[in-house]
Order: sequence, then C-alpha cells, then structure tokens
Amino acid sequence: MEIISYSSGILKLLDQRKLPFETEYVLCKNYKESIGAIRNMVVRGAPAISIVGAYALAQAANSGYEPGAVGEEIIGARPTAVDLANAVHYVLGSISEEKEPDEVAKTWEEKVYQNCKALSVAGSELIKPGAKVLTHCNTGPIAVGKYGTALGAIIQAHKKGKNPFVWVDETRPRFQGALTSWELTNERIPHKVITDSTAASLMQKGEVDLIMVGADRICKNGDFANKIGTYSLAVLAKHHDIPFYVLAPTSTFDPNLKSGEDIPIEQRDPREVLEPSGHPAFNSKTSAINYAFDVTPRELVTAYVTEEGVGQNPPKA
Amino acid sequence: MEIISYSSGILKLLDQRKLPFETEYVLCKNYKESIGAIRNMVVRGAPAISIVGAYALAQAANSGYEPGAVGEEIIGARPTAVDLANAVHYVLGSISEEKEPDEVAKTWEEKVYQNCKALSVAGSELIKPGAKVLTHCNTGPIAVGKYGTALGAIIQAHKKGKNPFVWVDETRPRFQGALTSWELTNERIPHKVITDSTAASLMQKGEVDLIMVGADRICKNGDFANKIGTYSLAVLAKHHDIPFYVLAPTSTFDPNLKSGEDIPIEQRDPREVLEPSGHPAFNSKTSAINYAFDVTPRELVTAYVTEEGVGQNPPKA
Repeated sequence: MEIISYSSGILKLLDQRKLPFETEYVLCKNYKESIGAIRNMVVRGAPAISIVGAYALAQAANSGYEPGAVGEEIIGARPTAVDLANAVHYVLGSISEEKEPDEVAKTWEEKVYQNCKALSVAGSELIKPGAKVLTHCNTGPIAVGKYGTALGAIIQAHKKGKNPFVWVDETRPRFQGALTSWELTNERIPHKVITDSTAASLMQKGEVDLIMVGADRICKNGDFANKIGTYSLAVLAKHHDIPFYVLAPTSTFDPNLKSGEDIPIEQRDPREVLEPSGHPAFNSKTSAINYAFDVTPRELVTAYVTEEGVGQNPPKA
Repeated sequence: MEIISYSSGILKLLDQRKLPFETEYVLCKNYKESIGAIRNMVVRGAPAISIVGAYALAQAANSGYEPGAVGEEIIGARPTAVDLANAVHYVLGSISEEKEPDEVAKTWEEKVYQNCKALSVAGSELIKPGAKVLTHCNTGPIAVGKYGTALGAIIQAHKKGKNPFVWVDETRPRFQGALTSWELTNERIPHKVITDSTAASLMQKGEVDLIMVGADRICKNGDFANKIGTYSLAVLAKHHDIPFYVLAPTSTFDPNLKSGEDIPIEQRDPREVLEPSGHPAFNSKTSAINYAFDVTPRELVTAYVTEEGVGQNPPKA
C-alpha cells in the first residue's frame, strides 16, 4: 500500500485519520496543504512527518517562497518530533547549494526508508522466538512511509519466522493502537489489543518479554519524548525487570537539547480525551488535559536501536 | 439524587449506564431483574452492588425461592467484588434466624452507608489543604448509594474547605471517569480528566500529591483487587514516592483469601475495548483482552482506610 508519494509537485498521502475503516488519499497541491496534513494528523509518525515536511519545503521553494521562513512554519506544525526540523534543515542546506528541491526531498525520503529498514532488522535481533512484545502507539510502515521502527522490528522478526506475539496498547486518546492492530492484521501477526492501563497487569503476570517503542525526539543525554504513556511503560518495565527498547532513526536525535526537560511538549485539544473517536463520553461542563507526549529519562532505557545498530548510548546526530 | 431505593418489593435503581447524559431509573420487580442489573452494570461499585444483592435475596425469599441457591446465583453475577458475597451471607444468616428479609436487607444498606460515611471522613484527614489527588474509576456516592469511598473522602475534604483538586483517570474501557467527573462537577470540585496513561507523567512533574482508590476485594494479607489500572498506579506511585491509599468498608475484606493470587478476576466482553462507548475504533478482524480488574500487592499500599480509621494493616473481617 502506498503511504506517501510525490509527483509533479503534488504530494499524495494515505489519510491515517480514516484508518482502519477506509483507505482514502489526500492530495496536497501546495506547501500550505502539506503543512495542514501534518497538523491535522492526516500523516503521523515522526519519520513520515519528516518526509512530508521535506516535500512541503520543496513545494514552497518551487513556488518561489522564501525557504527559510517556510521552514520555520513547517517546523511549527508539530513541535515535539525533531525529525521534522531535521528534514527542514537538511532540505534548506541542500537548496542553498543550488540542488533541485524535489531531488533533495526525494533523497531525504530514501534516507529515511533505508535507515528505518536497517534499524528494523537490527531490532528484530532482540526478539527471541515466540517472544511476547508490548508496543505503544503506531510505529509501523504507515508511521514512516515504509518498514516502520518499533513495529518494523516486530515485522522483521515475524518475517524471519520468529513467531512474535504482540500486545497492542490502544494508545488513548487517539487510538493509534487501531493503526497498529490493522497493520498486524494485514501482516497476519498474532496480537491482542489492550487498554493502556492493562499493560502493568500483564507485566505482573509474566506475559510481557520485552517492550519496544518509537521516539519523537531523543536528547543528547538519551532522554526522549514519545507518545503519552511511554514513560508509564518505562517505569513499569523497570519495576518488572523487563527490557525496554527505543527504536528510531538518528534523524530523531536532537544534539541541541541537553536533556528531556528542554523538550517542548505539544498539548492538543481536550476534546480528543472527552470525545473518544468523536463521540462525547463526559458531561459537557467538565474539562480535560491532553498532553500528546511524555518524556522518558535515559536511565529507564535498556538500549537504543538506530540504523547504526543496538547501543546503550543514545545515537549521535 | 436517589441512587438505590426499595419499596413494596420493588428495587429502583439509577441507571449508571446512561450517566452522565441521562438520569433514568430501572425498576427491578423480582430477584432475577435485580441480578440482571448487577450483571449489566446498571449498578456498579462494590458497596452499591452489595446493597442490590441484599435486596435481590430479600425479593427471592419473599417469593418463596430457596435462599441458599439464589444466594449463589447472586454472588455469581459479578465474581470479583466480595462485598456482594458478604451481603448475601449476612442476609442468609439473618433470614435463618427468622428475621424479615426486607428488614435484613435494609439493615445491610444502612450499615454500608454508615461505614462509607465514617471512612470518607477518616480519609479526608489524609488530604492536606490544596492537595492534588489522583483517583481511578468511580468511587463516589453512586458507587455506594451514598457518600462514596475514595471519592467520598475527597468530597468530605472539599466540604471541610480544604480545596482539593482532582485528577480523574478516564478509566478505560468503560470510562467510569465520566461518572467521577460528573459527580465532581455536581459538587463543584475543581478537576481535570486525563487518559489513564497520563497519570505517570503528572507524577513525574510533581503534580500528584496523593492517590486514593477504592477496592473490590481485600485479602487477608492486604493484597487487593480493584478496577484494571489500579496496580499500574500503585507501581507508579511507589516509583515517585507518592502516598497510595485504599479506601473501602470492611465488607470489602475477604478473610477466606490468603493473597491476591487467589482472587477471581472477571474478564468482560472484548468489545468494551474495541468499541469505546459502543463505537468501533478497531478493524473487525482484530481481537482484544479485557480484564476488568487487577491485583495490587500489599507492599505498594501506604494505608487502608475503613470505617475503623486509617491503618497500615488490612482491615479485619
């Protein structure tokens, strides 16, 4: 299934908001529409967002906009994932060397795919035959464009015949677990969806062998931001002595941030909490808080898996 | 608002499935209908369920059914909470002494209210002025019939002018947080709803001063069962050095169970997970697991709060 494609200046994106029920595409004919697709979560997943950001900047440059200013606008579309900013800086740097914007964006895209393939293969080595892997949010092919990160490693392990079983956190408030369970269903990988707060109980019962998650931004010291609920899993993993792996390309690394305290955390509309899948579940006078991400400190991470392999230190930029 | 009332052999119950949007009542004209109300979660909350169980047995006895057999049927309606079994045994014991079934059930009801009032007052002493309390599931007046348990303590603290602030776990899969936020809205107590996996991040930020939860069954050694997600909070509380209190009347104590491993854990329909509030969010070929409760070991409990006061040991039967 095609997730991201670009042709004749038009970016075609699988609309992830409609999954798993409908397979629809959104056409972004200019950079403003591409930014809108990032902001509205037509596309999501840090690596996939970075690819769309690269093409958005190419669209803007081709239309004569000042790339620097547009680059800032693109970076602001979703503040937590750093891959987007890294993509923008990569394209800006290459454009200044008078390379063709479309070619530059294409090169970024290919680099993301190569890196995610490499890290998925490296991560699959951490999965023993028959292992029960717990994962959070969606980190599969649709979160990258191809291959995936944490879920990519699980898919590679499955392809190697290791028969992994997957516990899929539903990932409130936006139920990205529905994307993960859809990708696992398509790959015929055995799995069960659980509510996020069930994870602890499964760990207690000895039903979780390892945890694999993606990342939206990894700081110099190894602290990292990822979907809300990741930090909770990391603390629980430590309590139960379960390995906790972070899988991300080095484009998720931010050498400018010393530690997790400096990561900007996006707050989204409280209605995502109060109206699950768009249907109100709470009284109209109540209110909610909706942090989209949380920060996990380095000491809770067993290892980082990047295109460079498995390491106990955070990746270098 | 009347939650449970009994008159002329008919049990009238506030339909908690319709809250917070509609205030409707279900009339249970015989013991079978009363059991149905427990099973279908018209009524929920361990103490409230016990009251309905007591009246169900009175209805059966008044209609000439063999109380012992009906008692077993009532206990089986929801297997995890022990209050229900304790209510049935209380009524059976009193009926055998030739007391009027309706009077016996009424006495049980009054005892539950008195105990929950006493423990709410005792629990409110643990809340310092301006404290931020995190709670899970619903343990307010509707979970008892009057007063509440964990939420009862928060309401008492509010009435004393302590200005507590409440973090309300939404409590997937059934969103009992919607009941809690509705009761807090009615009491004008400031609060915010959060997704369950946000709790860890708030603890990390220093935004949680204490955690108060109810219980469905407390074992002899102090291990206890409560709504799925409670164990997760207890582990997280320990990691962050936050007090974790369990509030329940002694009727929640089960002297026959040595430890948490022996507690029967109800599994409910996976559709509660896959169809939040009745609306499908996952692909139709995927599956889920839906444990309704989890078990928290004694060593994670700071103190137990019962009608007898605050104690570091589990209550005696």
